[in-house]
Amino acid sequence: MKVNVIKSVLKANDLVAEKTRQQFRQADVLAINLISAPGSGKTTLLEKTIPALKPEGESIVIVGDLETTRDADRLSPYALAVTQINTGMSCHLYANQVASALDGLPLDKADYVFIENVGNMVCPGEFDLGENLKVVLYSIPEGDDKVAKYPTIFRVADLVLLTKADLQPHMEFDTERVRAEINRLNSTVPILVLSSRDGQGTAAWLEWLRDKRTEAIGQAARFVTE
Amino acid sequence: MKVNVIKSVLKANDLVAEKTRQQFRQADVLAINLISAPGSGKTTLLEKTIPALKPEGESIVIVGDLETTRDADRLSPYALAVTQINTGMSCHLYANQVASALDGLPLDKADYVFIENVGNMVCPGEFDLGENLKVVLYSIPEGDDKVAKYPTIFRVADLVLLTKADLQPHMEFDTERVRAEINRLNSTVPILVLSSRDGQGTAAWLEWLRDKRTEAIGQAARFVTE
Repeated sequence: MKVNVIKSVLKANDLVAEKTRQQFRQADVLAINLISAPGSGKTTLLEKTIPALKPEGESIVIVGDLETTRDADRLSPYALAVTQINTGMSCHLYANQVASALDGLPLDKADYVFIENVGNMVCPGEFDLGENLKVVLYSIPEGDDKVAKYPTIFRVADLVLLTKADLQPHMEFDTERVRAEINRLNSTVPILVLSSRDGQGTAAWLEWLRDKRTEAIGQAARFVTE
Repeated sequence: MKVNVIKSVLKANDLVAEKTRQQFRQADVLAINLISAPGSGKTTLLEKTIPALKPEGESIVIVGDLETTRDADRLSPYALAVTQINTGMSCHLYANQVASALDGLPLDKADYVFIENVGNMVCPGEFDLGENLKVVLYSIPEGDDKVAKYPTIFRVADLVLLTKADLQPHMEFDTERVRAEINRLNSTVPILVLSSRDGQGTAAWLEWLRDKRTEAIGQAARFVTE
Protein backbone atom coordinates (compact mmCIF):
# COMPACT_ATOMS: atom_id res chain seq x y z
CA MET A 1 0.00 0.00 0.00
CA LYS A 2 2.61 2.52 1.10
CA VAL A 3 4.97 1.42 -1.67
CA ASN A 4 2.24 1.93 -4.27
CA VAL A 5 1.68 5.48 -3.10
CA ILE A 6 5.40 6.21 -3.42
CA LYS A 7 5.55 4.60 -6.88
CA SER A 8 2.68 6.68 -8.21
CA VAL A 9 4.20 9.86 -6.77
CA LEU A 10 7.45 9.03 -8.57
CA LYS A 11 5.65 8.30 -11.86
CA ALA A 12 3.68 11.56 -11.79
CA ASN A 13 6.91 13.36 -10.93
CA ASP A 14 8.71 11.85 -13.94
CA LEU A 15 5.99 12.99 -16.37
CA VAL A 16 6.30 16.59 -15.19
CA ALA A 17 10.11 16.36 -15.28
CA GLU A 18 10.03 15.22 -18.91
CA LYS A 19 7.99 18.27 -19.91
CA THR A 20 10.43 20.53 -18.08
CA ARG A 21 13.34 18.89 -19.91
CA GLN A 22 11.65 19.72 -23.24
CA GLN A 23 11.33 23.36 -22.14
CA PHE A 24 15.04 23.47 -21.34
CA ARG A 25 15.84 21.90 -24.72
CA GLN A 26 13.73 24.43 -26.61
CA ALA A 27 15.40 27.31 -24.76
CA ASP A 28 18.96 26.02 -25.44
CA VAL A 29 19.58 25.88 -21.74
CA LEU A 30 21.79 23.52 -19.74
CA ALA A 31 20.02 22.62 -16.50
CA ILE A 32 22.05 21.37 -13.55
CA ASN A 33 20.59 19.82 -10.39
CA LEU A 34 22.99 20.46 -7.48
CA ILE A 35 22.69 17.85 -4.73
CA SER A 36 24.57 17.63 -1.45
CA ALA A 37 24.40 17.52 2.32
CA PRO A 38 23.69 20.81 4.11
CA GLY A 39 26.67 23.12 4.16
CA SER A 40 28.73 21.61 1.36
CA GLY A 41 29.00 24.96 -0.40
CA LYS A 42 26.34 24.90 -3.16
CA THR A 43 25.42 28.58 -2.82
CA THR A 44 29.02 29.76 -2.49
CA LEU A 45 29.92 27.77 -5.59
CA LEU A 46 27.12 29.48 -7.53
CA GLU A 47 28.23 32.90 -6.25
CA LYS A 48 31.57 32.23 -7.98
CA THR A 49 30.27 30.31 -10.99
CA ILE A 50 27.53 32.61 -12.29
CA PRO A 51 29.73 35.73 -12.66
CA ALA A 52 32.51 33.61 -14.23
CA LEU A 53 30.08 32.32 -16.87
CA LYS A 54 28.75 35.83 -17.64
CA PRO A 55 30.95 36.55 -20.69
CA GLU A 56 29.23 33.76 -22.59
CA GLY A 57 26.07 33.02 -20.69
CA GLU A 58 23.34 34.10 -18.29
CA SER A 59 22.11 31.94 -15.43
CA ILE A 60 18.80 31.35 -13.75
CA VAL A 61 18.74 29.81 -10.27
CA ILE A 62 15.96 27.85 -8.61
CA VAL A 63 16.70 27.24 -4.93
CA GLY A 64 14.98 24.76 -2.67
CA ASP A 65 15.02 25.17 1.08
CA LEU A 66 12.69 24.24 3.92
CA GLU A 67 12.38 27.90 4.90
CA THR A 68 14.04 31.30 4.33
CA THR A 69 15.14 33.03 1.14
CA ARG A 70 18.75 33.32 2.27
CA ASP A 71 20.29 31.50 -0.67
CA ALA A 72 18.15 33.34 -3.21
CA ASP A 73 19.10 36.66 -1.59
CA ARG A 74 22.78 35.79 -1.89
CA LEU A 75 22.48 34.84 -5.57
CA SER A 76 20.17 37.57 -6.85
CA PRO A 77 23.02 40.08 -7.49
CA TYR A 78 24.58 37.67 -10.00
CA ALA A 79 21.81 35.75 -11.72
CA LEU A 80 19.38 36.78 -14.43
CA ALA A 81 16.61 35.58 -12.11
CA VAL A 82 16.34 33.63 -8.87
CA THR A 83 13.33 31.81 -7.48
CA GLN A 84 13.30 30.31 -4.01
CA ILE A 85 10.99 27.38 -3.36
CA ASN A 86 10.19 26.74 0.30
CA THR A 87 9.54 23.04 0.67
CA GLY A 88 8.25 23.22 4.26
CA MET A 89 8.56 19.67 5.56
CA SER A 90 9.91 18.08 2.37
CA CYS A 91 13.59 17.20 2.21
CA HIS A 92 13.84 17.47 -1.59
CA LEU A 93 12.34 19.34 -4.55
CA TYR A 94 9.58 17.81 -6.68
CA ALA A 95 9.40 18.27 -10.47
CA ASN A 96 6.11 20.18 -10.24
CA GLN A 97 7.71 22.78 -7.95
CA VAL A 98 10.43 23.42 -10.52
CA ALA A 99 7.88 23.47 -13.35
CA SER A 100 5.79 26.08 -11.50
CA ALA A 101 8.86 28.19 -10.79
CA LEU A 102 9.79 28.18 -14.49
CA ASP A 103 6.48 29.78 -15.45
CA GLY A 104 7.63 33.17 -14.24
CA LEU A 105 11.26 32.97 -15.37
CA PRO A 106 12.91 34.38 -18.55
CA LEU A 107 14.11 31.01 -19.82
CA ASP A 108 14.68 32.27 -23.38
CA LYS A 109 17.25 34.78 -22.17
CA ALA A 110 19.15 32.17 -20.12
CA ASP A 111 21.95 29.77 -20.98
CA TYR A 112 22.23 27.91 -17.70
CA VAL A 113 19.68 26.90 -15.08
CA PHE A 114 21.04 25.87 -11.71
CA ILE A 115 18.63 24.05 -9.43
CA GLU A 116 19.99 24.09 -5.89
CA ASN A 117 18.21 21.21 -4.18
CA VAL A 118 17.44 20.99 -0.44
CA GLY A 119 20.54 19.94 1.51
CA ASN A 120 20.14 16.16 1.73
CA MET A 121 22.21 13.21 0.50
CA VAL A 122 19.30 10.78 0.15
CA CYS A 123 15.94 11.80 -1.33
CA PRO A 124 16.97 14.35 -4.01
CA GLY A 125 18.64 11.53 -5.96
CA GLU A 126 15.28 9.81 -6.49
CA PHE A 127 13.35 12.78 -7.91
CA ASP A 128 13.98 13.80 -11.52
CA LEU A 129 13.38 17.55 -11.83
CA GLY A 130 13.85 17.72 -15.60
CA GLU A 131 17.51 18.67 -15.33
CA ASN A 132 20.12 17.61 -17.89
CA LEU A 133 22.70 16.59 -15.34
CA LYS A 134 23.08 15.95 -11.63
CA VAL A 135 26.11 17.35 -9.82
CA VAL A 136 26.85 16.00 -6.34
CA LEU A 137 28.88 18.16 -3.94
CA TYR A 138 30.72 16.22 -1.24
CA SER A 139 32.54 18.50 1.14
CA ILE A 140 35.87 17.33 2.51
CA PRO A 141 35.07 18.24 6.16
CA GLU A 142 32.23 15.67 6.03
CA GLY A 143 34.94 12.99 6.24
CA ASP A 144 36.09 10.35 3.77
CA ASP A 145 33.64 7.56 4.70
CA LYS A 146 30.49 8.91 3.06
CA VAL A 147 30.45 7.25 -0.39
CA ALA A 148 29.37 3.76 0.64
CA LYS A 149 26.91 5.24 3.14
CA TYR A 150 25.04 7.31 0.53
CA PRO A 151 25.48 5.12 -2.55
CA THR A 152 22.27 6.06 -4.40
CA ILE A 153 23.37 9.65 -4.83
CA PHE A 154 26.80 8.71 -6.19
CA ARG A 155 25.27 6.18 -8.61
CA VAL A 156 23.15 8.86 -10.31
CA ALA A 157 25.79 11.64 -10.29
CA ASP A 158 27.07 13.03 -13.59
CA LEU A 159 29.85 14.90 -11.81
CA VAL A 160 31.16 14.84 -8.24
CA LEU A 161 32.78 17.93 -6.75
CA LEU A 162 34.91 17.41 -3.64
CA THR A 163 34.42 20.85 -2.10
CA LYS A 164 36.06 22.93 0.66
CA ALA A 165 39.42 21.51 -0.43
CA ASP A 166 41.13 24.43 1.34
CA LEU A 167 40.29 22.63 4.63
CA GLN A 168 42.04 19.41 3.56
CA PRO A 169 45.38 20.31 5.24
CA HIS A 170 43.52 20.49 8.57
CA MET A 171 41.68 17.16 8.15
CA GLU A 172 42.32 13.50 7.62
CA PHE A 173 40.69 12.88 4.25
CA ASP A 174 41.93 10.18 1.85
CA THR A 175 41.05 11.56 -1.59
CA GLU A 176 42.28 8.46 -3.43
CA ARG A 177 40.10 6.19 -1.31
CA VAL A 178 37.09 8.41 -2.00
CA ARG A 179 37.81 8.48 -5.75
CA ALA A 180 38.09 4.68 -5.82
CA GLU A 181 34.84 4.22 -3.88
CA ILE A 182 32.92 6.63 -6.11
CA ASN A 183 34.21 4.95 -9.26
CA ARG A 184 33.29 1.52 -7.90
CA LEU A 185 29.65 2.68 -7.83
CA ASN A 186 29.84 4.83 -10.97
CA SER A 187 32.84 3.95 -13.11
CA THR A 188 32.70 6.89 -15.53
CA VAL A 189 31.75 9.85 -13.35
CA PRO A 190 34.36 12.63 -13.32
CA ILE A 191 35.51 13.85 -9.90
CA LEU A 192 36.91 17.34 -9.35
CA VAL A 193 38.62 18.64 -6.21
CA LEU A 194 37.49 22.21 -5.69
CA SER A 195 37.63 25.15 -3.31
CA SER A 196 35.46 28.21 -3.79
CA ARG A 197 37.67 29.93 -1.24
CA ASP A 198 41.12 29.55 -2.83
CA GLY A 199 39.86 28.90 -6.37
CA GLN A 200 41.45 25.48 -6.96
CA GLY A 201 39.48 23.34 -9.40
CA THR A 202 37.11 26.09 -10.50
CA ALA A 203 38.63 26.36 -14.00
CA ALA A 204 37.97 22.65 -14.59
CA TRP A 205 34.41 23.01 -13.25
CA LEU A 206 33.68 25.95 -15.58
CA GLU A 207 35.14 24.03 -18.53
CA TRP A 208 32.92 21.05 -17.70
CA LEU A 209 29.84 23.32 -17.64
CA ARG A 210 30.73 24.95 -20.98
CA ASP A 211 31.37 21.57 -22.61
CA LYS A 212 28.10 20.15 -21.31
CA ARG A 213 26.16 23.16 -22.53
CA THR A 214 27.68 22.79 -26.00
CA GLU A 215 26.72 19.10 -25.97
CA ALA A 216 23.17 19.88 -24.81
CA ILE A 217 22.67 22.46 -27.57
CA GLY A 218 24.04 20.01 -30.15
CA GLN A 219 21.61 17.34 -28.96
CA ALA A 220 18.74 19.84 -28.99
CA ALA A 221 19.57 20.79 -32.62
CA ARG A 222 19.59 17.11 -33.64
CA PHE A 223 16.33 16.61 -31.79
CA VAL A 224 14.70 19.45 -33.76
CA THR A 225 15.89 18.24 -37.20
CA GLU A 226 15.06 14.56 -36.64
CA MET B 1 -4.82 11.59 0.23
CA LYS B 2 -1.04 11.69 0.40
CA VAL B 3 -1.17 13.73 3.61
CA ASN B 4 -3.49 11.17 5.20
CA VAL B 5 -1.03 8.40 4.45
CA ILE B 6 1.77 10.38 6.06
CA LYS B 7 -0.37 11.18 9.11
CA SER B 8 -1.27 7.55 9.70
CA VAL B 9 2.37 6.53 9.30
CA LEU B 10 3.32 9.12 11.93
CA LYS B 11 0.57 7.97 14.28
CA ALA B 12 1.55 4.30 14.03
CA ASN B 13 5.17 5.37 14.56
CA ASP B 14 4.28 7.26 17.75
CA LEU B 15 2.51 4.26 19.26
CA VAL B 16 5.56 2.06 18.78
CA ALA B 17 7.83 4.82 20.09
CA GLU B 18 5.81 5.10 23.28
CA LYS B 19 6.26 1.37 23.96
CA THR B 20 9.98 1.69 23.39
CA ARG B 21 10.13 4.61 25.82
CA GLN B 22 8.51 2.42 28.47
CA GLN B 23 11.15 -0.25 27.86
CA PHE B 24 13.90 2.31 28.37
CA ARG B 25 12.23 3.53 31.56
CA GLN B 26 11.97 0.02 32.98
CA ALA B 27 15.63 -0.63 32.21
CA ASP B 28 16.83 2.64 33.84
CA VAL B 29 18.37 3.67 30.57
CA LEU B 30 18.84 7.15 29.10
CA ALA B 31 18.15 7.00 25.36
CA ILE B 32 19.56 9.70 23.11
CA ASN B 33 18.62 10.22 19.45
CA LEU B 34 21.57 11.82 17.63
CA ILE B 35 20.50 13.85 14.60
CA SER B 36 22.65 15.74 12.12
CA ALA B 37 23.70 16.22 8.52
CA PRO B 38 26.10 13.63 7.07
CA GLY B 39 29.63 14.05 8.32
CA SER B 40 29.00 16.13 11.41
CA GLY B 41 30.88 13.68 13.61
CA LYS B 42 28.21 11.54 15.29
CA THR B 43 30.25 8.32 15.19
CA THR B 44 33.49 10.01 16.23
CA LEU B 45 31.69 11.63 19.16
CA LEU B 46 30.41 8.21 20.28
CA GLU B 47 33.90 6.72 19.93
CA LYS B 48 35.04 9.25 22.55
CA THR B 49 31.88 9.31 24.66
CA ILE B 50 31.26 5.61 25.29
CA PRO B 51 34.71 4.86 26.81
CA ALA B 52 34.52 8.06 28.88
CA LEU B 53 31.19 6.94 30.36
CA LYS B 54 32.51 3.44 31.15
CA PRO B 55 33.41 4.02 34.80
CA GLU B 56 29.76 4.58 35.62
CA GLY B 57 27.82 3.18 32.72
CA GLU B 58 27.59 0.86 29.73
CA SER B 59 26.27 1.94 26.36
CA ILE B 60 24.27 0.31 23.61
CA VAL B 61 24.31 1.84 20.13
CA ILE B 62 21.72 1.55 17.39
CA VAL B 63 23.00 2.99 14.12
CA GLY B 64 20.92 3.88 11.07
CA ASP B 65 22.49 4.15 7.63
CA LEU B 66 21.26 3.57 4.09
CA GLU B 67 23.92 0.91 3.58
CA THR B 68 27.14 -0.46 5.13
CA THR B 69 27.97 -1.38 8.71
CA ARG B 70 30.88 1.07 8.90
CA ASP B 71 29.65 3.02 11.89
CA ALA B 72 28.70 -0.11 13.81
CA ASP B 73 32.12 -1.61 13.09
CA ARG B 74 33.79 1.50 14.46
CA LEU B 75 31.73 1.48 17.66
CA SER B 76 31.69 -2.22 18.47
CA PRO B 77 35.03 -2.15 20.37
CA TYR B 78 33.58 0.31 22.90
CA ALA B 79 29.89 -0.47 23.31
CA LEU B 80 28.14 -3.24 25.21
CA ALA B 81 26.29 -3.98 21.96
CA VAL B 82 25.85 -2.34 18.57
CA THR B 83 23.12 -2.93 16.02
CA GLN B 84 23.21 -1.41 12.57
CA ILE B 85 19.92 -0.82 10.77
CA ASN B 86 20.17 -0.42 7.01
CA THR B 87 17.33 1.84 5.93
CA GLY B 88 17.81 1.32 2.19
CA MET B 89 16.02 4.24 0.56
CA SER B 90 14.75 5.86 3.77
CA CYS B 91 16.48 9.01 5.03
CA HIS B 92 15.55 8.46 8.68
CA LEU B 93 14.87 5.70 11.21
CA TYR B 94 11.34 4.59 12.12
CA ALA B 95 10.30 3.63 15.64
CA ASN B 96 9.55 0.04 14.60
CA GLN B 97 13.12 -0.40 13.35
CA VAL B 98 14.47 0.66 16.74
CA ALA B 99 11.91 -1.52 18.55
CA SER B 100 12.96 -4.56 16.50
CA ALA B 101 16.64 -3.85 17.13
CA LEU B 102 15.99 -3.72 20.90
CA ASP B 103 14.63 -7.27 20.94
CA GLY B 104 18.12 -8.70 20.63
CA LEU B 105 19.94 -6.24 22.87
CA PRO B 106 20.95 -6.55 26.58
CA LEU B 107 19.00 -3.49 27.69
CA ASP B 108 19.04 -4.49 31.37
CA LYS B 109 22.84 -4.33 31.42
CA ALA B 110 22.95 -0.90 29.80
CA ASP B 111 22.82 2.62 31.19
CA TYR B 112 22.82 4.61 27.96
CA VAL B 113 21.34 3.91 24.53
CA PHE B 114 22.63 6.06 21.68
CA ILE B 115 20.56 6.00 18.50
CA GLU B 116 22.64 7.39 15.66
CA ASN B 117 20.09 8.44 13.07
CA VAL B 118 20.67 8.57 9.29
CA GLY B 119 22.61 11.72 8.33
CA ASN B 120 19.83 14.16 7.48
CA MET B 121 18.73 17.53 8.89
CA VAL B 122 15.05 17.23 7.94
CA CYS B 123 13.11 13.99 8.34
CA PRO B 124 14.64 12.51 11.54
CA GLY B 125 13.12 15.40 13.51
CA GLU B 126 9.60 14.23 12.67
CA PHE B 127 9.92 10.61 13.79
CA ASP B 128 9.84 9.83 17.50
CA LEU B 129 11.92 6.70 18.12
CA GLY B 130 11.09 6.39 21.81
CA GLU B 131 14.21 8.27 22.90
CA ASN B 132 14.31 10.46 26.00
CA LEU B 133 16.13 13.31 24.32
CA LYS B 134 17.16 14.52 20.89
CA VAL B 135 20.68 15.86 20.40
CA VAL B 136 21.39 17.80 17.20
CA LEU B 137 24.96 17.98 15.94
CA TYR B 138 25.71 21.00 13.74
CA SER B 139 29.25 20.95 12.44
CA ILE B 140 31.05 24.25 12.11
CA PRO B 141 32.37 23.56 8.57
CA GLU B 142 28.74 23.42 7.38
CA GLY B 143 28.71 27.22 7.69
CA ASP B 144 26.84 29.56 10.02
CA ASP B 145 23.63 29.99 7.95
CA LYS B 146 21.98 26.63 8.66
CA VAL B 147 19.69 27.31 11.62
CA ALA B 148 16.92 29.20 9.83
CA LYS B 149 17.16 26.80 6.88
CA TYR B 150 16.52 23.69 8.97
CA PRO B 151 14.29 25.13 11.70
CA THR B 152 12.25 21.99 12.49
CA ILE B 153 15.26 20.14 13.78
CA PHE B 154 16.39 22.98 16.05
CA ARG B 155 12.86 23.41 17.43
CA VAL B 156 12.78 19.80 18.69
CA ALA B 157 16.40 19.65 19.92
CA ASP B 158 17.08 19.08 23.64
CA LEU B 159 20.76 19.91 23.16
CA VAL B 160 22.75 21.33 20.25
CA LEU B 161 26.41 20.45 19.82
CA LEU B 162 28.46 22.71 17.54
CA THR B 163 31.01 20.12 16.41
CA LYS B 164 34.41 20.13 14.67
CA ALA B 165 35.24 23.31 16.58
CA ASP B 166 38.95 22.63 15.90
CA LEU B 167 38.26 23.79 12.32
CA GLN B 168 36.84 27.13 13.43
CA PRO B 169 40.17 29.04 13.08
CA HIS B 170 40.19 28.08 9.38
CA MET B 171 36.58 29.13 8.71
CA GLU B 172 34.30 32.11 8.93
CA PHE B 173 31.71 30.99 11.46
CA ASP B 174 29.87 33.41 13.71
CA THR B 175 29.11 31.36 16.83
CA GLU B 176 27.18 34.17 18.52
CA ARG B 177 24.90 34.58 15.50
CA VAL B 178 24.25 30.85 15.48
CA ARG B 179 23.52 30.79 19.21
CA ALA B 180 21.07 33.67 18.84
CA GLU B 181 19.29 32.03 15.91
CA ILE B 182 18.98 28.68 17.69
CA ASN B 183 17.61 30.35 20.82
CA ARG B 184 15.11 32.34 18.76
CA LEU B 185 13.59 29.00 17.66
CA ASN B 186 14.14 27.20 20.94
CA SER B 187 14.77 29.58 23.80
CA THR B 188 15.87 27.07 26.45
CA VAL B 189 18.00 24.60 24.51
CA PRO B 190 21.61 24.42 25.74
CA ILE B 191 24.33 24.80 23.10
CA LEU B 192 27.82 23.36 23.53
CA VAL B 193 30.86 24.03 21.33
CA LEU B 194 32.75 20.77 20.98
CA SER B 195 35.64 19.08 19.19
CA SER B 196 36.18 15.35 19.36
CA ARG B 197 39.64 15.98 17.94
CA ASP B 198 41.09 18.42 20.50
CA GLY B 199 38.65 17.54 23.30
CA GLN B 200 37.15 20.99 23.93
CA GLY B 201 33.59 20.83 25.23
CA THR B 202 33.58 17.08 25.88
CA ALA B 203 33.59 17.48 29.68
CA ALA B 204 30.42 19.58 29.50
CA TRP B 205 28.82 17.06 27.12
CA LEU B 206 29.59 14.15 29.48
CA GLU B 207 28.25 16.12 32.43
CA TRP B 208 25.03 16.84 30.51
CA LEU B 209 24.63 13.11 29.77
CA ARG B 210 25.20 12.11 33.40
CA ASP B 211 22.75 14.73 34.67
CA LYS B 212 20.10 13.67 32.18
CA ARG B 213 20.51 10.02 33.09
CA THR B 214 20.09 10.85 36.79
CA GLU B 215 16.93 12.83 35.94
CA ALA B 216 15.56 10.00 33.77
CA ILE B 217 16.09 7.42 36.53
CA GLY B 218 14.45 9.77 39.04
CA GLN B 219 11.44 10.16 36.80
CA ALA B 220 11.26 6.41 36.22
CA ALA B 221 11.27 5.83 40.00
CA ARG B 222 8.43 8.34 40.45
CA PHE B 223 6.60 6.67 37.57
CA VAL B 224 6.81 3.28 39.30
CA THR B 225 5.66 4.52 42.73
CA GLU B 226 2.77 6.63 41.42
